[in-house]
Amino acid sequence: MMGAKMIDLGEASKVELVLESSYTSRDVALYALGVGAGSDPLDDSDRRFVYERGEFHALPTFAVIPQSNAMLSTITPTGFNLPGMSASLECLLHGEQYTELRAPLPTSAKLKHLVRFKNAYDKAPNAVVEYGITSVDESGRQIMYNEISFFVIGGGGWGGDRGPSAPAVSPPDRAPDAVIEEKTAPNQALLYRLSGDWNPLHADPAFARRFGFDRPILHGLCTFGYLGRHVMKAMFGNDPRKFKSIKVRFAEPVFPGETLVSRMWREGDTRVIAETIVKERGKAAIKNGVIESRD
Amino acid sequence: MMGAKMIDLGEASKVELVLESSYTSRDVALYALGVGAGSDPLDDSDRRFVYERGEFHALPTFAVIPQSNAMLSTITPTGFNLPGMSASLECLLHGEQYTELRAPLPTSAKLKHLVRFKNAYDKAPNAVVEYGITSVDESGRQIMYNEISFFVIGGGGWGGDRGPSAPAVSPPDRAPDAVIEEKTAPNQALLYRLSGDWNPLHADPAFARRFGFDRPILHGLCTFGYLGRHVMKAMFGNDPRKFKSIKVRFAEPVFPGETLVSRMWREGDTRVIAETIVKERGKAAIKNGVIESRD
Repeated sequence: MMGAKMIDLGEASKVELVLESSYTSRDVALYALGVGAGSDPLDDSDRRFVYERGEFHALPTFAVIPQSNAMLSTITPTGFNLPGMSASLECLLHGEQYTELRAPLPTSAKLKHLVRFKNAYDKAPNAVVEYGITSVDESGRQIMYNEISFFVIGGGGWGGDRGPSAPAVSPPDRAPDAVIEEKTAPNQALLYRLSGDWNPLHADPAFARRFGFDRPILHGLCTFGYLGRHVMKAMFGNDPRKFKSIKVRFAEPVFPGETLVSRMWREGDTRVIAETIVKERGKAAIKNGVIESRD
Repeated sequence: MMGAKMIDLGEASKVELVLESSYTSRDVALYALGVGAGSDPLDDSDRRFVYERGEFHALPTFAVIPQSNAMLSTITPTGFNLPGMSASLECLLHGEQYTELRAPLPTSAKLKHLVRFKNAYDKAPNAVVEYGITSVDESGRQIMYNEISFFVIGGGGWGGDRGPSAPAVSPPDRAPDAVIEEKTAPNQALLYRLSGDWNPLHADPAFARRFGFDRPILHGLCTFGYLGRHVMKAMFGNDPRKFKSIKVRFAEPVFPGETLVSRMWREGDTRVIAETIVKERGKAAIKNGVIESRD
């Protein structure tokens, strides 16, 4: 089972894969609960992300889900077989994520996802592999664009390019302009996973131990959802239409039940720098967070 | 909108309605989280109700869901139109529930539900209306049987039978044999409702105020699920196969975020008497709880 290899690197940049997925308003509400929304039943501006029978909006970070579920659907018993990468689940960690909304997010949709191999970097003994995914609706309109960066344990060593040193996004040297602190539930990962990412790393203690964790960890994209929601609330008046994009680096795992502290700095009119600290351990779970707004 | 009437009572006892519904293993796991399962990610005996990729079982009280969703699917903009009862949602409260497993509960299924009108009692100005629902799988095998009793506000006054005084099930005059206390989440009703009961009473504060509540209330069946889970855990070694049936009366609403205290008394080899107290207010939310086990 354990194993990863880079395949057809020379040709990979030309390879594309077209996948499909669909979602319903129930999926959108379930996702919002999975990233901690709805914790104040009397808060109207929060309820609209979890109650599909009122004024209803998808949380902007839901834009990562449809393509992610389409990618997960390609997994076979031996793992992922994507253009340019073949790797079992035991070898993969989510390194970075960029998600951009290119149209107002529908509350239900059937989408096509065009998956493009972007880069593979040899960080021997490991590797970093990047994909870009453009998602379009049935009329062909672009709805969202995602870039995912996998950290592939043991996937390096083919003598390839180490790639650029990713520039760190440093928060300004001042106190954050806004901070939102929120405790996750002990069963947060079990709830989040019903949005599609069923990787046993987030539910099965035996599987988590193979990664060196003494218990299942929260999905990086769950923490990502908390951060996006917090930034939208503190910086964009909780208006999802103002949310354009989010980019993060996953730095440390979070354990379900821990408290997430989202720290944000306004930088110019349309840019927010953000990070997520795990309160109990003082570690940064998300670094290099950049959220862009429209206007 | 507001209104309830009893229709065709003379003929109603002959009327039957056949409905259909289906569910997936994801629905089963979501339900379990909706009634608070999975709060300890390292507890194997709990995980099997929320993690469909391991050893997976449906919580026994999930047996109330398929027919409930089928019944809810009959609601029109004017409310329920069931044999013997026509009533808008604003007039209905869930009075009592009996749920019996007649076969091991499948973790996914397509079921047919035979809905029989049982009784209508005139408790002028209100009414109590009872249905019995037998659910069978595609091979015709009986999977579960449910009885639901609606309390219909303003539905009485036709000069009918008041019905029997329901015998109270009194707990024995001793301390409970087991007590399990668990806090619900502030968004518990928002999560539970994704199992199918979208009644705005549990999500929309304005709708809840029409019932005289200052905020949305938890579904009675959510509290019912907590109680069933607690009894199974404390009394049946968390083995769902030992669970035969559960009957409860809904006495007081619960608000999401409150703490449920399940108190249980063993009575003979196969019978447990139980009640649910809301810790913060000292009120009994569920009375007359009787859970039967196999053997």
